[in-house]
Amino acid sequence: MKLYTYFRSSAAYRVRIALALKGIAYEAVPVHLLRDGGEQLGDNYRAVNPSALLPTLEDDNGVVIGQSLAILEYLEETRPTPPLLPPDAAGRARVRALALTLVADSHPLSNLRVLKYVKGELGQGEDAKLAWQRHWLHEGLATFEALLTRDAGTGRYCHGATPTLADCCLVPQLFNARRFGLDLTGFPTLVRIDAACAELPAFQAAQPARQPDAE
Amino acid sequence: MKLYTYFRSSAAYRVRIALALKGIAYEAVPVHLLRDGGEQLGDNYRAVNPSALLPTLEDDNGVVIGQSLAILEYLEETRPTPPLLPPDAAGRARVRALALTLVADSHPLSNLRVLKYVKGELGQGEDAKLAWQRHWLHEGLATFEALLTRDAGTGRYCHGATPTLADCCLVPQLFNARRFGLDLTGFPTLVRIDAACAELPAFQAAQPARQPDAE
Repeated sequence: MKLYTYFRSSAAYRVRIALALKGIAYEAVPVHLLRDGGEQLGDNYRAVNPSALLPTLEDDNGVVIGQSLAILEYLEETRPTPPLLPPDAAGRARVRALALTLVADSHPLSNLRVLKYVKGELGQGEDAKLAWQRHWLHEGLATFEALLTRDAGTGRYCHGATPTLADCCLVPQLFNARRFGLDLTGFPTLVRIDAACAELPAFQAAQPARQPDAE
Repeated sequence: MKLYTYFRSSAAYRVRIALALKGIAYEAVPVHLLRDGGEQLGDNYRAVNPSALLPTLEDDNGVVIGQSLAILEYLEETRPTPPLLPPDAAGRARVRALALTLVADSHPLSNLRVLKYVKGELGQGEDAKLAWQRHWLHEGLATFEALLTRDAGTGRYCHGATPTLADCCLVPQLFNARRFGLDLTGFPTLVRIDAACAELPAFQAAQPARQPDAE
């Protein structure tokens, strides 16, 4: 199994966590988002993934998947132990909705290509770009915190006593939030769960600083 | 079953298509995105869905889900006939990745709240706003077209001979693309599949113009 990844890509980070939790060995294929104008934009990577976004998973059976949440679901279906989705439909819906709060509604807004457009085509300076990033990070995390605090399903992790896909998505987004100086005092539940995840070897192994392409 | 919806919300439109394909009766609860500064931003709707985004599904068993793709997966698990995901893990991954190309990477970038920020905080005019919308619509559809043309799994619909979650997501995004004047000549496969979907009564019933809150 191959994972096209970049150490600081938070979408790749989600998948690295799931691979580590499930104990799946893989070959990391680094794609440098900044070198040579962005290796992800070159013909080589576009032939693998036409979106020119990370990550992409290539399974040994030839299956190629270019969306982090689709990869997580595929790993769950093909390598079900340990499970990263709860057994009941309501619980699964809750975990998926939590994940999508970040995967769909928050993270894409501060992706590198979007920041480039905000600075380039929209002519914004560094301060406005940073405010933009923080705004959409804050919106996503505020919704996530509200969803956790109102629901008895929240446990040591986002849903119950073991990590799920929601935790795989939360931890990388909190990494982004800290990297870009977001104030996390309004998100005590997220910070608590992030600390619980950080104690697990799988979450540690997936950290950006531990990747072979880390700088 | 209740669906909080707005006739032109393309995320709600995805769910309406799936409900119609599966023949599930539901009560439409209109949330007007523009009236009174946006009904979705009021306390009443935020109590249902803290993201202040549409749609939300409330099942009769009390399950509340506030993300369109999580709703689609929940419907698939709890009302599996007719299936909107293929039976094999590789096919399911493909359909989910297609859906996420729009649900995560394209649609959130031209959501109403983002357009407001582009015009407000970033001080952009109507032309720059429209160019922004078209840019991200184009990026998502170009990836989608590339994913369809390179794969033998593409059939009358996005994946094979029956509609899947990918079609539920594609049709509303093409509705947006036409609404905002995007040139579709580069997307012959998408236009062909959209026309095939438009022949089905379920896709017709879900159209914005046919909703009780249509203007």
